[in-house]
Amino acid sequence: MELVNEPKTKRGLETLDKISKAAEELFSEKGYYDTGITDIVMKAGIAQGTFYIYFNDKKSVFVYLINKLGKELKDSIRFNTKVSKDRYDEEYMGIKTFLNFVGEHIGLFKIVWQAQFVDMELFKEYYESFSKGYVKGIIKAQTKGEMTDIDPVILSYCLIGIANFTALKSIEFDGKSSNYDEVVEEVMKFIRNGAFKNKES
Amino acid sequence: MELVNEPKTKRGLETLDKISKAAEELFSEKGYYDTGITDIVMKAGIAQGTFYIYFNDKKSVFVYLINKLGKELKDSIRFNTKVSKDRYDEEYMGIKTFLNFVGEHIGLFKIVWQAQFVDMELFKEYYESFSKGYVKGIIKAQTKGEMTDIDPVILSYCLIGIANFTALKSIEFDGKSSNYDEVVEEVMKFIRNGAFKNKES
Repeated sequence: MELVNEPKTKRGLETLDKISKAAEELFSEKGYYDTGITDIVMKAGIAQGTFYIYFNDKKSVFVYLINKLGKELKDSIRFNTKVSKDRYDEEYMGIKTFLNFVGEHIGLFKIVWQAQFVDMELFKEYYESFSKGYVKGIIKAQTKGEMTDIDPVILSYCLIGIANFTALKSIEFDGKSSNYDEVVEEVMKFIRNGAFKNKES
Repeated sequence: MELVNEPKTKRGLETLDKISKAAEELFSEKGYYDTGITDIVMKAGIAQGTFYIYFNDKKSVFVYLINKLGKELKDSIRFNTKVSKDRYDEEYMGIKTFLNFVGEHIGLFKIVWQAQFVDMELFKEYYESFSKGYVKGIIKAQTKGEMTDIDPVILSYCLIGIANFTALKSIEFDGKSSNYDEVVEEVMKFIRNGAFKNKES
């Protein structure tokens, strides 16, 4: 477990949030290796001792942050696809939610991709847990005849790759900061034809 | 320019190759920030002075390596798609070549993705130059009626994303080290339906 103590008060939760926000900024701007606990503490505006109430070391903050970002993204996708009428609609909202999430967490790729050096298992688990969720939905949709018969694991990684690299292009490279609808429309033309059956444009 | 001097002899070329191979191993195992010129020199089995014949500093080796890997991959794709009979066939061979390339350069994602910290422009240019090549081919195939009308830039990043994440999954996560044909077949089912017209399986 990456947390030494769970915060028990509102103030504790706020402190943990300050640490997490400071770490997110620093790990994406300076990178994990160039960031010290002192930097995190200073940026968060807390006392050094307060840091150690919640974390044992820098690595624990990193693990906590990666898991937190992954959980927030999954929660956000779950929330936004709650009223989806079919798997296609879910896919559409999922991609849109992902683009918005990256727009709100500009350093996401820098943080997640450097996990390859900090903790390869953590990096792998980050994507494997997304894939697992995807695979369940794909198999269900394939059984219903909504989606094409393609190996669900490979298809899940195709979809993860599409979401990641179109977000990288439009947000990180082109600096797009809102209104991703046009990007989503074009991406969905490809996904609709590629993975869905009997779904007219 | 990242090279101080171009090697003029066979021996010079061999030395440069030794430096490049040592840097590739170290940047992917230990990472850019934890690797020193001394490590590179030791691993390459050359004298410190020899290093400075070709490079000014560590960053130059990194830039040289990223550009070298990008060029090798492009050359390899160009070579393997020379006899392709149509765009679909090119795409098939392109994905297959990419998987083989990643299999031969296990640390590729670690090296390329940490470029986000070392030199963001270099990182961006690495993918943008791939996209540009892709876009040319896509527009040609769309004009001929071979490919579906999807924004070619977005489509190029969809295809780059698919290649990267299916390679990440099958090679880095699952440890597959040869015979990527099954992966390519499944990926191409998706791409064929998603981006190609009148192309039967």
